[in-house]
Amino acid sequence: MPSPVGIVGFRGYSGAEAVRILSKHPHCEPVLLEHRSDAGGDAKLLRKSTILRASAAPEAVAEAGLKAVLLATPPEVSMDLAPKYLAAGAVVVDLSGAFRLGTAENYKKWYKEEHTAADLLPSAVYGLPEYNRAATVGAKLVSNPGCYPTAANLAIRPLVAAGIVDRAAGIVCDAKSGVSGAGRKATLKNAFCEVTENFSAYSILNHRHVPEVLQTSGVAEEEFSFTAQLIPIDRGILETIYFRTVHPMDASEILAVYQAQYENEPFVRLYEAGNVPDLRAVQRTNFCDIGVIADPKTRRCVVVSAIDNLVKGAAGQAIQNLNLALGFAETAGLL
Amino acid sequence: MPSPVGIVGFRGYSGAEAVRILSKHPHCEPVLLEHRSDAGGDAKLLRKSTILRASAAPEAVAEAGLKAVLLATPPEVSMDLAPKYLAAGAVVVDLSGAFRLGTAENYKKWYKEEHTAADLLPSAVYGLPEYNRAATVGAKLVSNPGCYPTAANLAIRPLVAAGIVDRAAGIVCDAKSGVSGAGRKATLKNAFCEVTENFSAYSILNHRHVPEVLQTSGVAEEEFSFTAQLIPIDRGILETIYFRTVHPMDASEILAVYQAQYENEPFVRLYEAGNVPDLRAVQRTNFCDIGVIADPKTRRCVVVSAIDNLVKGAAGQAIQNLNLALGFAETAGLL
Amino acid sequence: MPSPVGIVGFRGYSGAEAVRILSKHPHCEPVLLEHRSDAGGDAKLLRKSTILRASAAPEAVAEAGLKAVLLATPPEVSMDLAPKYLAAGAVVVDLSGAFRLGTAENYKKWYKEEHTAADLLPSAVYGLPEYNRAATVGAKLVSNPGCYPTAANLAIRPLVAAGIVDRAAGIVCDAKSGVSGAGRKATLKNAFCEVTENFSAYSILNHRHVPEVLQTSGVAEEEFSFTAQLIPIDRGILETIYFRTVHPMDASEILAVYQAQYENEPFVRLYEAGNVPDLRAVQRTNFCDIGVIADPKTRRCVVVSAIDNLVKGAAGQAIQNLNLALGFAETAGLL
Amino acid sequence: MPSPVGIVGFRGYSGAEAVRILSKHPHCEPVLLEHRSDAGGDAKLLRKSTILRASAAPEAVAEAGLKAVLLATPPEVSMDLAPKYLAAGAVVVDLSGAFRLGTAENYKKWYKEEHTAADLLPSAVYGLPEYNRAATVGAKLVSNPGCYPTAANLAIRPLVAAGIVDRAAGIVCDAKSGVSGAGRKATLKNAFCEVTENFSAYSILNHRHVPEVLQTSGVAEEEFSFTAQLIPIDRGILETIYFRTVHPMDASEILAVYQAQYENEPFVRLYEAGNVPDLRAVQRTNFCDIGVIADPKTRRCVVVSAIDNLVKGAAGQAIQNLNLALGFAETAGLL
Repeated sequence: MPSPVGIVGFRGYSGAEAVRILSKHPHCEPVLLEHRSDAGGDAKLLRKSTILRASAAPEAVAEAGLKAVLLATPPEVSMDLAPKYLAAGAVVVDLSGAFRLGTAENYKKWYKEEHTAADLLPSAVYGLPEYNRAATVGAKLVSNPGCYPTAANLAIRPLVAAGIVDRAAGIVCDAKSGVSGAGRKATLKNAFCEVTENFSAYSILNHRHVPEVLQTSGVAEEEFSFTAQLIPIDRGILETIYFRTVHPMDASEILAVYQAQYENEPFVRLYEAGNVPDLRAVQRTNFCDIGVIADPKTRRCVVVSAIDNLVKGAAGQAIQNLNLALGFAETAGLL
Repeated sequence: MPSPVGIVGFRGYSGAEAVRILSKHPHCEPVLLEHRSDAGGDAKLLRKSTILRASAAPEAVAEAGLKAVLLATPPEVSMDLAPKYLAAGAVVVDLSGAFRLGTAENYKKWYKEEHTAADLLPSAVYGLPEYNRAATVGAKLVSNPGCYPTAANLAIRPLVAAGIVDRAAGIVCDAKSGVSGAGRKATLKNAFCEVTENFSAYSILNHRHVPEVLQTSGVAEEEFSFTAQLIPIDRGILETIYFRTVHPMDASEILAVYQAQYENEPFVRLYEAGNVPDLRAVQRTNFCDIGVIADPKTRRCVVVSAIDNLVKGAAGQAIQNLNLALGFAETAGLL
Repeated sequence: MPSPVGIVGFRGYSGAEAVRILSKHPHCEPVLLEHRSDAGGDAKLLRKSTILRASAAPEAVAEAGLKAVLLATPPEVSMDLAPKYLAAGAVVVDLSGAFRLGTAENYKKWYKEEHTAADLLPSAVYGLPEYNRAATVGAKLVSNPGCYPTAANLAIRPLVAAGIVDRAAGIVCDAKSGVSGAGRKATLKNAFCEVTENFSAYSILNHRHVPEVLQTSGVAEEEFSFTAQLIPIDRGILETIYFRTVHPMDASEILAVYQAQYENEPFVRLYEAGNVPDLRAVQRTNFCDIGVIADPKTRRCVVVSAIDNLVKGAAGQAIQNLNLALGFAETAGLL
Repeated sequence: MPSPVGIVGFRGYSGAEAVRILSKHPHCEPVLLEHRSDAGGDAKLLRKSTILRASAAPEAVAEAGLKAVLLATPPEVSMDLAPKYLAAGAVVVDLSGAFRLGTAENYKKWYKEEHTAADLLPSAVYGLPEYNRAATVGAKLVSNPGCYPTAANLAIRPLVAAGIVDRAAGIVCDAKSGVSGAGRKATLKNAFCEVTENFSAYSILNHRHVPEVLQTSGVAEEEFSFTAQLIPIDRGILETIYFRTVHPMDASEILAVYQAQYENEPFVRLYEAGNVPDLRAVQRTNFCDIGVIADPKTRRCVVVSAIDNLVKGAAGQAIQNLNLALGFAETAGLL
């Protein structure tokens, strides 16, 4: 019998994607949990989902026998709900930024508000399974990584760890995202006529996903330049990453570093030397695709890393983490 | 010296388009009139426009020497402002639905609210120049037609007037519009991710533009089926119109009816028999393009009528009306 | 052990969709069959599929133990291959128009070329399972319906059969399709810059899918007006259908006709009276969604019918037919 | 009386844009020159243009009294036609890459073919008016810059010239373009369904526009990393440029360098410190918009440079050059 898993924020893009994935999961079934902040919203996206039960509060955990709850909610809602659901005995996977940064100070610096559940920070596991798998198995509170940091860390960390990046020259990460990354909201900025046939940069050198990259990849802030940009499409993140190798290396040699790291990873795919992914390759999948172009003569290197922001960048990775936390096969429901 | 022409609602899509056209108009210059309902809005669209003066009220008419004011505002704002600007001596061209229907009763029926400036209705000229040119010359209050009715009436009225439509079989007008037709607003319905890669129908058999088609084309409500649909593009309206001819006619014979009507019209273009316009042909122009396909054997006929909803469907036609009202060449600034 | 099913034309949009569906099918596995006409093509779309074997000819049937072959090929290729694969003992589901029209004369009239496998026409089953289920069970040659006719026939036939359509007033079917309906080809007409931000009609009153609607729905050609139009999106077909009822009926009464017909159909979904589907509701599913708006006073009725052109309009329905022909559950791999 | 100016390649996107601009030019009128390589093409885009005359060869120069000819053609056609039109007495503005690189060797290296009009290279003026204005006045052969290099050079050259770039750390130019940059061609790569909802990088570290940036900006190849990427939109180029300043500078100080350089330039617009352009700001204009973000503490700087690839990146700049070569006001027809 499948385990019931609650989803709060199921009307948002990430929440709806989680419902979709859980509907086909071999060991789980989705339970939609109404929360006041989205009551009255448009349920159109859910037409095809099985709405088993709806409930207003953590009491649902016992009532519905929930093993786990996914919070696809803004950080302030997650800080409110996570303690309650944990107290009720459920595993919590939080998709917001509430528990990603290690300290309340760092949270306040980047999110511009007080952390209201700081006592949970030490026990929150940063759920990038490729690097934190052991800690995620059996975890009670998993903080699901941000979309941009997922694509960035999977591409940058192995290179930094292998010591092949010329740190003095810095690393540039030019990131582009589909509009669903901004969430399901009525804003003029994301209105169709403002976005279509346009392309725009935002949060240049100042995006709140930057500290997640720094803390996982081991790069220092002064070495890392990050720009987020909006592509007029629904979903997908592509990051073009520039650096220099410390000594001349061709694409195959750089790929060897990735191969050593990701040989057994089910959700990281590498491209042949000289080839890079486009977004089509990863949309609606939980894969992170990585390709390398390098010019050994000048030590310049370009890595392209691509994910679906709603899957590996949100709901898919959340369920990958859920699988680990609950003891299911890591890939269950995701291939 | 160019005549100053005020624009209220210059941050909306139609208003911004009017500013753009007037900036290149040989006899006018745009004066942006701030109105409380859009104060604080995003002025991004106007970066390239000459903002000559900004003023809050009808007093601007005397201060700025305004000859005319374009109201690119919702009907309730137009009903409030039109009397004030008229009293101040300006010609008013209203782009809303406030003064399009002849009576306050009809307005209430379709717009679901009381008409608050009903005394102006008798003097408002319905500004479809191809049929109301004489009345528009020198008019004080011009009611600019709706976008859908402009494309529909220019296509349907000549056929009905010529008596070639089999009225018993009815007329179907299947209309499709770009998203800018819904105005510049923060709504979930028009958010990029809801619209892109989608297509949807709305206000089927019940759109408030229908009475404008009935009163101008001479078709009865029971004969006319109208559906509005949203294309995931910025601008343009294409209407596919179906009817039967009373006796067998081929496309050339039907085109002859249009040619007789529009021979000297600067903004109506006809296509060779068997050819129809696409939206590319009319975007960013004040043209209404019309093409005809017919099967004389079965008397079935399809007419395709296309305009840019922001130009011939809004700001362009408003300036065409302005030209007539102020005594300029009808095409000034529009070719 | 899953049954091997061959796909010819697996690089096209419909063929690739078939591979995707069969990859998750509980009883089948896809076998990619190279054909000279697509040799050398770009296999990019298939990155994620399991390419089990590739073979050049009908000999593959025995070699690979194929139970069935899907032909996602142009009609001239299907007329060539179908006899060969049938002779080799495989069930054939053909996605082209080659075997849809009952006679070679009709084929020549609409497809403008001679039929080169006319002897197969009598045994070809027109695979619209909602109306031809019994004949499809155990069939050897199934002709998969066209995308436009699938949406049209599912919407129109029950109304005509129930005798509620005022035939004298005619039926209008205004159809809109995503660009993938035109196939995976290098043409200027379908180049990105020609299509984006555009909308265009084609084959007005003259589309070769029309005879499929006539033969299945029971409507006569002179009663039926059909226009195909290109939406600047990847996938989805939405048809807006206009007719008059013979006597006053409201939407609920018309829906009752559909409910009686489709009560037990797994892939037809009906909307509450006054509601209609958009494309988002059906994309990437095998559903046909139908909604009704009606004005009993004037007997006007609008039905909206929506499908995914690559799924219920092509590969999904082909696998629905395959399931019937091979004796699997009709919905296997499709929910 | 307006001067007749010929356009070869008027069916392409750049050529059609040139026709559009010249149609409103105060001193010129477009003359469409048919060339065998585009004979039989689709003239749809030109519906609204005045086609004055069509002619097959350089004889047209005398016949039509042409003062100048714009070559909106591939480099191999330009190498063939430029000498002929020059010999016939016309000023030639070539929009291809044929005459942009100073030597035949360099051309062969980047364009992979022999230069067949190498004797013209010494006299060809590289038409970036902001840096080559004096040489362009009265020039006989102007080589119009590439789209990517125009946006890159206008952003990078002033910084390099002022000596504020930390050359050792290198310069990254992450460039994104609308699809019209690839020209009007039937290719699978640019088919609608391959491009929409996708985003892809190409020619990483290897684009043939790179040498144009090097020769004008003064940057060395080993210092410069360039990636071209395809945005699923029609038109516009946005380049995100990363570098470090040699000593700490804030955005205002960097902007001061640009202001000193571009104070009197009609087609370069600067943004307030901390603000950057999006594509909407420049589409359908001849402007290059530049904005700066900087973090003095770490010396990291990001410059965003945006143009319309068909205007400042092609036809608009070509007419800017034409104005200079023929002695008209530089901005004629372009504001």
